Amino acid sequence: MDLQTLIVLIIELIGTIAFSISGAMVGIRRKMDIFGVLVLGVVTAVGGGMMRDVILGKTPSAFVKPIYVEVAVISALAPFLLLSINKRLMHSKYQTLYAGLMFLMDSVGLGIFTAVGVSTGWTAGYHDNMFFLSFLGVLTGVGGGLLRDVMAGVPPYIFVKHVYACASIAGAICCVLAYRSWGQIPALVIGTIVVLVIRIGAAHYRWNLPCVKLEDEE
Amino acid sequence: MDLQTLIVLIIELIGTIAFSISGAMVGIRRKMDIFGVLVLGVVTAVGGGMMRDVILGKTPSAFVKPIYVEVAVISALAPFLLLSINKRLMHSKYQTLYAGLMFLMDSVGLGIFTAVGVSTGWTAGYHDNMFFLSFLGVLTGVGGGLLRDVMAGVPPYIFVKHVYACASIAGAICCVLAYRSWGQIPALVIGTIVVLVIRIGAAHYRWNLPCVKLEDEE
Amino acid sequence: MDLQTLIVLIIELIGTIAFSISGAMVGIRRKMDIFGVLVLGVVTAVGGGMMRDVILGKTPSAFVKPIYVEVAVISALAPFLLLSINKRLMHSKYQTLYAGLMFLMDSVGLGIFTAVGVSTGWTAGYHDNMFFLSFLGVLTGVGGGLLRDVMAGVPPYIFVKHVYACASIAGAICCVLAYRSWGQIPALVIGTIVVLVIRIGAAHYRWNLPCVKLEDEE
Repeated sequence: MDLQTLIVLIIELIGTIAFSISGAMVGIRRKMDIFGVLVLGVVTAVGGGMMRDVILGKTPSAFVKPIYVEVAVISALAPFLLLSINKRLMHSKYQTLYAGLMFLMDSVGLGIFTAVGVSTGWTAGYHDNMFFLSFLGVLTGVGGGLLRDVMAGVPPYIFVKHVYACASIAGAICCVLAYRSWGQIPALVIGTIVVLVIRIGAAHYRWNLPCVKLEDEE
Repeated sequence: MDLQTLIVLIIELIGTIAFSISGAMVGIRRKMDIFGVLVLGVVTAVGGGMMRDVILGKTPSAFVKPIYVEVAVISALAPFLLLSINKRLMHSKYQTLYAGLMFLMDSVGLGIFTAVGVSTGWTAGYHDNMFFLSFLGVLTGVGGGLLRDVMAGVPPYIFVKHVYACASIAGAICCVLAYRSWGQIPALVIGTIVVLVIRIGAAHYRWNLPCVKLEDEE
Repeated sequence: MDLQTLIVLIIELIGTIAFSISGAMVGIRRKMDIFGVLVLGVVTAVGGGMMRDVILGKTPSAFVKPIYVEVAVISALAPFLLLSINKRLMHSKYQTLYAGLMFLMDSVGLGIFTAVGVSTGWTAGYHDNMFFLSFLGVLTGVGGGLLRDVMAGVPPYIFVKHVYACASIAGAICCVLAYRSWGQIPALVIGTIVVLVIRIGAAHYRWNLPCVKLEDEE
């Protein structure tokens, strides 16, 4: 395995770990048992890529390369064990810590998988279809978190967190452009960074996208 | 592009606009920001066809023909801008207007996409498998709205609105029969009209399908 | 059709009937009308296998062999008619009966479809990839019930019922091992039995998997 393949694999695994932890945290928060937590972690980690591969008409890489699921299982297990051992971490004063870690893990996963989705579409031969490449990136990026939230019955992050889809779309487009100019590795790095910067900036500076307030009648 | 292709494209675009507006309205109602609204509009508009194409084993047309997504984005933007500009439209006295428009957009989308699903299956070469053709029609018709409601966390239209699946099934079957006798365009028109007539009739005459009332213990 | 094919078909149909009834019961409980109940029954019965076939890149068997959907429709119709005719069955004193039947139907479906998923992957030529085979089994087993619960808006069985995913995973692994030693029929039977034994044991002896209790702030 040459250096480039190795770097790509490492980047993918970081994204897998991040998303799997975010899934596990949602599962723990929803008081699921250990298997529910593991399932939710794995679904979050491999879900987006699975949708992408199915649309590309190839067998999902999660199946042919067990390492992704193995890493996802271990990553989902970690927070579960940590919280089981150290009960103090469950005290409500750690809510902000929880929220912050959840935000970080979800953002890293979103950034990396958005870039990975673009790169997968590129290697699948869709060099010219910038639209399709971006779409694959966004689908791969938001797919896992969307499955996680829908399965756990919580309001999807993509709709409640501001500039979530926005960050993924911007990252995907930058990733495609970077790919054309400098190739795969820079594209992966730049795409990820763009998403992270937008997400963190939005959270820190309270960026809000316009939304219409209707009188609530529910 | 010959006349028939053009007519089919126009019909598909009308369905795309209708479903995208219905998705955007649900998003606005759920107080999503502008990107959430756009995502929900696009998912509603292209979701059903994407499921259909994945099952048929072809790359979703939404990816290869960006026009559908482009039209969906513009259609989802329209109600958002309209409501942002004209705040009066948000007053609760417009609830019935909202409900009516929502019903119309969803019914038109349901009708057109049911027929389009049948026609896509037909052109894919499944002339004889009436069952498969109808199934594809219903999947394409209800798929987008189902994704919309599940993602937005509202009770799926298909289960709460009476004779929703029923209308789609009837329309799909009529569409297949019309296809055999008179070809594509008449099939698309007849399939759509059948769905619309059943939906409007059900709403107007308060048709109710039987349902079992259990004592509620939730 | 030789004997083995016949036995496999019968096993699949039993699973279809069980899952379809479980879907119909959820629909009735959610006060859906007859079409909603039928749709939910069919989705529960064919949903898992459809995901599996899409991932394997083949046209879902539910489409090419209408018998599965036909049997699912009839099975979903049965509890609906029974409850419509015999109102007494709706009295709350039958809640335990309802819960028991629901548990049985869901467990039988989970067991059979887990084994069927493994066997489908095997016949698709993935003899050596034990990981993929098990994954297909679990996906086929839990997929239908997961779609049912997400579409009906109830907390997914897989996350609230203890050792649900656990039972499916154990059954899938045993099924793969049995397949290697004794072939298809024994694999199907053993896989199903393992799932059933674990589910029933978990329910009867109140097995609980560890889960972390966080202070609730919702």
